[in-house]
Amino acid sequence: MKDMSPFKLLMPCEKALKEILNAIKPIERTERISLEQAVGRVLASDVKADMDVPPFDRSAMDGYAVKAEETFEASQFNPVKLNVVGVLHAGESSDKPIKKGECIRIATGCPIPPGADAVVMMEFTEEKNGIAYILKPVHPGANIARKGEDIKKGEAILKKGDLLSPAKIGVLASLGHKDVLVYQKPRVAVISTGSEIRDPGSPLEKGQIYDVNSYTLTSILLENGASVTRSPIVPDAIDEVRSAVLRYLDHDLIVFSGGSSVGERDVLVKVVEELGELIFHGVQIKPGKPTLFGLVEGKPVLGMPGDFMPE
Amino acid sequence: MKDMSPFKLLMPCEKALKEILNAIKPIERTERISLEQAVGRVLASDVKADMDVPPFDRSAMDGYAVKAEETFEASQFNPVKLNVVGVLHAGESSDKPIKKGECIRIATGCPIPPGADAVVMMEFTEEKNGIAYILKPVHPGANIARKGEDIKKGEAILKKGDLLSPAKIGVLASLGHKDVLVYQKPRVAVISTGSEIRDPGSPLEKGQIYDVNSYTLTSILLENGASVTRSPIVPDAIDEVRSAVLRYLDHDLIVFSGGSSVGERDVLVKVVEELGELIFHGVQIKPGKPTLFGLVEGKPVLGMPGDFMPE
Repeated sequence: MKDMSPFKLLMPCEKALKEILNAIKPIERTERISLEQAVGRVLASDVKADMDVPPFDRSAMDGYAVKAEETFEASQFNPVKLNVVGVLHAGESSDKPIKKGECIRIATGCPIPPGADAVVMMEFTEEKNGIAYILKPVHPGANIARKGEDIKKGEAILKKGDLLSPAKIGVLASLGHKDVLVYQKPRVAVISTGSEIRDPGSPLEKGQIYDVNSYTLTSILLENGASVTRSPIVPDAIDEVRSAVLRYLDHDLIVFSGGSSVGERDVLVKVVEELGELIFHGVQIKPGKPTLFGLVEGKPVLGMPGDFMPE
Repeated sequence: MKDMSPFKLLMPCEKALKEILNAIKPIERTERISLEQAVGRVLASDVKADMDVPPFDRSAMDGYAVKAEETFEASQFNPVKLNVVGVLHAGESSDKPIKKGECIRIATGCPIPPGADAVVMMEFTEEKNGIAYILKPVHPGANIARKGEDIKKGEAILKKGDLLSPAKIGVLASLGHKDVLVYQKPRVAVISTGSEIRDPGSPLEKGQIYDVNSYTLTSILLENGASVTRSPIVPDAIDEVRSAVLRYLDHDLIVFSGGSSVGERDVLVKVVEELGELIFHGVQIKPGKPTLFGLVEGKPVLGMPGDFMPE
């Protein structure tokens, strides 16, 4: 029996993937974009904290900034009385040190005034005629969010190559970055080939079917962060396929879909062999056996079967 | 001890979520968009197949279209000889019926010519001087992808409300749709409030910190398919918060972040109670206890704590 199969040696799937990963190079082009559009993008430089977060000791509660040791004897039945010498609303701060017997009413987030080393929660106090009655002792440091507690100045906080999740976007915002250097999205050209393929929206003639694969491939690529050029459908002729490869060499990856018949598959094989290097043709996977991969001028070219019919 | 907690009754988290889901309404605005941009969007109408996919019986293989019964006796040592009366390359079709003793060479994807009821794979044939030698029997229907095998004409194939995955995009393409009616993205306004909050990129003065939450919330919303307006930072004053609510009532959801101190939290509570209905304030979750939810002119307003410090 004559063997007409063009796949002399099918490559195991894991090896095929390895070959692809060995052959491709990471994107090196970068761009600076607004932080609010950066989710899902890839950081292109290490980020060191150039400030502490929070940048100062902050009150973690609404309450009274006190010297903790003055509250040690406080209880509901024996409140400690402190003079309220100031009030800090949100966004306000005070440089005036509090002295023995004094306290300052403070809102969550305000800097702890000098002289104070703890905050008593509002719930455990009463205030009358400028006197705060402290009903519960606090330890030094109570209800204070320490300077640098979230991020220490000088800390290497994010790394080149990090995928920017909402949490990492928040880290950059907390350090005052309003924009961020990211890698450009990979540019991928998706090309359906086939003389029987028509673009959706045009009428079908006898023997023709609609192009499905360039739409599904484009969708998968968009979901995974690529920038996609969907090419007009290319006939299976060798000159047309060669022109398409050359036309899209400014992209980072060229994906062909189609050429489901042996003759058609040969067209892309020939073009890749002629213009560059064919790395594999035929993978131990079903459907998908006729998948091919090669490099043309260093650019990866992937040929996917157009048809997922049994083979 | 005086109870100054503003949260008289913390709502269990599941109940809070239920209240939110009860109060919100699905988006009804639709738009027609290009199929290649539709991945991740939500279909706004049922889709019925108005054609069969494939639209005709197709060859699933490169080979020879034959009358199956003529091959029943074929073997490698006793090939059946058939006259090759035509060749169908990809995209071609033939209306001429094949007769007894005849076959047509056919490429994958071509319509099965009249008179033929099976395809013999190229691998199990040889051709010489216009005669095909069939080396293996095939049963009727062998290597044929039947008309309507993937999708039957008239079938309700996609439903209003379906999330458009790459596979569903492919279904729409196979039916010839070049655009698709989807629901518009929900429009969400994200507003950070707080007198101590500054936008990243501006210098910090004493007691100030950078706005983190509007960036993380915006990122989470973008990742989940919303269209986001990030508002400039709004001071905690009641007039400013009221204006902000009114300004963004053309959105589908207004999310406030901030007002971490009791006084500030009260501002949004008062505004929501004044302009609409407060549904809950205080949830049994940490961090996040001071979360509030209400409706203003039917629009959901969510108040998130600005600070995730321990409470």
